[in-house]
Amino acid sequence: MYYHVNGQLVASENATVNVRDRGFRYGDGAFETIRAYGGELFAWTTHRRRLVNTCETLGMANAVPTDLRERIDATLEANDLVDAYVRVSVTRGIQPGKLTPSHDVDPTVVVMVEELPRGGRNGTSVWETYATVQSVGTRRIPNDAVPVDAKTHNYLNGILARLELRRAATDSYQPDEALLRDTDGYVAEGTTSNLFFVERGTLKTPQKGTVLPGVTREIVLDLAEDEAFPVETGQYTLDDVRSADEAFLTNTTWELRPIERIDGIATGDGPITNLLARLYDDLVERHY
Amino acid sequence: MYYHVNGQLVASENATVNVRDRGFRYGDGAFETIRAYGGELFAWTTHRRRLVNTCETLGMANAVPTDLRERIDATLEANDLVDAYVRVSVTRGIQPGKLTPSHDVDPTVVVMVEELPRGGRNGTSVWETYATVQSVGTRRIPNDAVPVDAKTHNYLNGILARLELRRAATDSYQPDEALLRDTDGYVAEGTTSNLFFVERGTLKTPQKGTVLPGVTREIVLDLAEDEAFPVETGQYTLDDVRSADEAFLTNTTWELRPIERIDGIATGDGPITNLLARLYDDLVERHY
Repeated sequence: MYYHVNGQLVASENATVNVRDRGFRYGDGAFETIRAYGGELFAWTTHRRRLVNTCETLGMANAVPTDLRERIDATLEANDLVDAYVRVSVTRGIQPGKLTPSHDVDPTVVVMVEELPRGGRNGTSVWETYATVQSVGTRRIPNDAVPVDAKTHNYLNGILARLELRRAATDSYQPDEALLRDTDGYVAEGTTSNLFFVERGTLKTPQKGTVLPGVTREIVLDLAEDEAFPVETGQYTLDDVRSADEAFLTNTTWELRPIERIDGIATGDGPITNLLARLYDDLVERHY
Repeated sequence: MYYHVNGQLVASENATVNVRDRGFRYGDGAFETIRAYGGELFAWTTHRRRLVNTCETLGMANAVPTDLRERIDATLEANDLVDAYVRVSVTRGIQPGKLTPSHDVDPTVVVMVEELPRGGRNGTSVWETYATVQSVGTRRIPNDAVPVDAKTHNYLNGILARLELRRAATDSYQPDEALLRDTDGYVAEGTTSNLFFVERGTLKTPQKGTVLPGVTREIVLDLAEDEAFPVETGQYTLDDVRSADEAFLTNTTWELRPIERIDGIATGDGPITNLLARLYDDLVERHY
């Protein structure tokens, strides 16, 4: 496998960064996860915009290289990949001095790829089963500590939540996504996913401000609007979610993934989930 | 300069980690900053214990190598250093799969060093001036999102606070430490330091629970207790701190650093700050 590091294609085992890189020392970097379908990046413009936004939040507005798309394409080509997972990282690179960032940024830009199955109408899901979701004690980092719309290399909040799942797991119970609440106790999001649920025909999802506004989340909201589904964004409790008629998670890799159970309570798919998933497949299918 | 990476001494320019390392991808690692005085590590046992605690919090209790001290000593020796800054990082290394950590951990262990001036009674401070402290809008990540006593590679909270200083700076005003409050509005800590202040002869510092329990903070509290100074830990507002008679910051590298101004209001040193600084120097002096 070839990765792309600072303008060069390199074998993945030689794809390294110096230990002085602020991406390593502090997690001082932005990233995006993008899917390539049929050799073409999905929702590229939206992902690129969010990457630039995250870099702006981190005070390095110009760190995203203008030829980023070409770097990704070159990486896909070098690996003969058309259906793939792409992860792009932009860190503040190596800087003299200590914690305070300097204005001059020579960013570290890394592209990692991995093969995924075909998407779209005849595609195969990357997940094998519906999600088993477990709410955890770890709370989502609030917006006034780290802006929630920044997608950064500081991912311990999610890792700690996943570790709670590991501790909760038994032979017969293996939750695979953790559901975090905000510090006020309202449902926020999964560690790598946004949550949707359906109650009496209305599609509901936690409002912006305590969740990462996922690209897939935005697309699903657009699709629902196009179909004139009743949609509501708001603050919800665990009880609201547990009593849902349907529920699913979204992220770039999973697309729409129905939830089998939340905290042991059966939810599952249904007509709205299934229609939205089909509409999403149709969007993806245009790339083939 | 030589660093120590995974059991090997390597020239610092070749000291690298793979981009798949979870330390790079997620900031999924623990670290400590330690000072060597006269060739000997200061408060080694305390630092080692906290590193192990952080690794336990991260679900990798056995990641700290038993020969860590030997690795540090070898790195100091290779660089002919006796007075030095030492940074030790232990990450979860490379693991298959995605966000959920696997039980098998092959940690990445990195030792970085840098020369510092002599410490102790005849030492030179690493800082040139008293600190200029500015409170910022960024709030300390609360304990229920990421345990505050874990010292990890997720350092964006502090970096965002320092970026606020950068934006606040003018030619005549250059604050060099940001003061964060907790999400309830009480004063917590600096981005890389703990805060102490003196009010009518009582030494005060924010209580555990919203601050990283710094090693220097603990030593200063012990010294104050030995001297039978009145000491109080509690919840304090910015007004409490701004009206202090004396104020100082502590961390391993700075030791005790008096505060010139907080939010533009003069504080400065005084008899209690100066006595504690001298007692700290005496502790350090034992290493020479």
